[in-house]
Amino acid sequence: MGEFDLIARYFTRPVRQAVLGVGDDCALLQPAPGTQMAISCDMLVQGRHFFADTDPRQLGHKALAVNLSDLAACGARPLAFTLALALPDVNEAWLAAFAQGLFALADAHDCELIGGDTTAGPLNICITVFGEVPVVNGKSQALLRSGARAGDDLYISGTLGDARLALEAMHGKLTVPNAVLAAARERLQSPAPRVALGLALRGIASAAIDVSDGLIGDLGHILERSRVGATVQVDQAVACIACHVHDAQTAGASGIHLSQEQWRTLALCGGDDYELLFTAPPSQSAAVAAAAQASQTPVRRIGKMDATAGLRLLDAQGQALPNHYTSFDHFA
Amino acid sequence: MGEFDLIARYFTRPVRQAVLGVGDDCALLQPAPGTQMAISCDMLVQGRHFFADTDPRQLGHKALAVNLSDLAACGARPLAFTLALALPDVNEAWLAAFAQGLFALADAHDCELIGGDTTAGPLNICITVFGEVPVVNGKSQALLRSGARAGDDLYISGTLGDARLALEAMHGKLTVPNAVLAAARERLQSPAPRVALGLALRGIASAAIDVSDGLIGDLGHILERSRVGATVQVDQAVACIACHVHDAQTAGASGIHLSQEQWRTLALCGGDDYELLFTAPPSQSAAVAAAAQASQTPVRRIGKMDATAGLRLLDAQGQALPNHYTSFDHFA
Repeated sequence: MGEFDLIARYFTRPVRQAVLGVGDDCALLQPAPGTQMAISCDMLVQGRHFFADTDPRQLGHKALAVNLSDLAACGARPLAFTLALALPDVNEAWLAAFAQGLFALADAHDCELIGGDTTAGPLNICITVFGEVPVVNGKSQALLRSGARAGDDLYISGTLGDARLALEAMHGKLTVPNAVLAAARERLQSPAPRVALGLALRGIASAAIDVSDGLIGDLGHILERSRVGATVQVDQAVACIACHVHDAQTAGASGIHLSQEQWRTLALCGGDDYELLFTAPPSQSAAVAAAAQASQTPVRRIGKMDATAGLRLLDAQGQALPNHYTSFDHFA
Repeated sequence: MGEFDLIARYFTRPVRQAVLGVGDDCALLQPAPGTQMAISCDMLVQGRHFFADTDPRQLGHKALAVNLSDLAACGARPLAFTLALALPDVNEAWLAAFAQGLFALADAHDCELIGGDTTAGPLNICITVFGEVPVVNGKSQALLRSGARAGDDLYISGTLGDARLALEAMHGKLTVPNAVLAAARERLQSPAPRVALGLALRGIASAAIDVSDGLIGDLGHILERSRVGATVQVDQAVACIACHVHDAQTAGASGIHLSQEQWRTLALCGGDDYELLFTAPPSQSAAVAAAAQASQTPVRRIGKMDATAGLRLLDAQGQALPNHYTSFDHFA
């Protein structure tokens, strides 16, 4: 099957919102008056971002999900995306499943494929996604990394550490019961981008980022861009680990035997979480709770922003913890 | 060097037109009121689109050029692009040269890098480019493949076949003098996107496409989308071969010894030409000439569009030629 047949069979659908979709030299998008276009781009490479045997349906989902997560972090409404795909061979069963996973998520977010490219080559998936952000009274409503202020509360959505738990188990570095592994793998392979929460936080959050490299690493980007510091209550972050086995008692009962240090590592530098880490002034705490409820997304306050530069970690008793979570591999 | 240092060192520059560039979850573009955004995406893979030893400066140029060529074919003014890059290793000399070639062309077209991604992996370059097309009285000014009508003239810009000549010589399938090879390689490795011509043809051309797969193949897309046929004067196309050795006399003098069939193959199915193939009603012939002059781009009429479906090829005497230029490798 040639490139054009492949595109026609698996990746061409009637456009709904775009002026022109797949099939010409360019696609055409007409942004609504008074809006800005938010644009993000992620490239996924086999062996680096996913295993060769990853279910293609989950891969189609994840390739778009990580891009939608960037739109969510900006509070942008998804509009459209382009897909460039390098394929080592034309495997129709693989392509059909990949397209199915991709379009199921695209449809759920009303985000349409408008163009792209296919070529032979080592498996590589590059998606560029387009979203819409309103401009109100000349001010962009986009959530940026640069808007956090000292005194703001720091929040995280959903759950942390599960994707990393799955990765460590799949690499044989720890043993977890099958049911826990299945749930954690689902988080790793089919993350749910927090688009609804991002939209609900417009005008409420002062800064936001999606957690792809781990809580501590991504928080660092907010600190750098906003020129503030932060204090994180580590055990509040640990409490976000989905399997709810973060305290000693349930941890034992769950069949997962990790040190306190390892639980903290999962939460603080898990990676691949695709949750929203965001800040908001204390005066907005009720609005944050309402946004969480409206978007049906759990949100937890895990710290606050400081005028003093740098990151401070506290345990449940308010004692300072050393921050070695960026440089230390506790599973090595 | 990590991903963030690499982006900071080689791929971060102050934005001029975008609201927000590299460094947040999304870039922000604010299209001018009354415009549409034209979007195109091309992925270049080592071994497929370029040789491993390709000069990285030329590669940076070409990766953007093939995308700008798509904007040109739509008559879109370049605005911005994203760059996703999978690199087998971090080679600073390579990156510096790649960035130099990329930004030299970007600056020449006032097209700025606003975001992207970098990752480890087999060398892969994926650029998504954004341009602007005005909407006048509710009608998009974009040049599309679908607008050709029976009776329209068919034109090609610039030169054809040189990139293919270089490829065949580099593969050892034919021998050409060094000076000719150098000029042809330049065309293969540093194509000049016909952006100025595309802009000048808005409101004049009825359909357009850029020639990347070869004249015959790309003309086929116009025929299919416009539901018309075409007659091509083959020797007018051959006359576009840049080295001006298309007639028997100068061909001999040039030191290139090809059969008439091979010359025709170069012109008709060369590939990698990145010229504009376009149609316009005969009433616009003076306007086409003026657009060519204004954009300092040679343009040649090579045929016309017919109501009868299909493609007909004629020689200089008006005799029909068999069309075996899509399936035949005359250099094999």
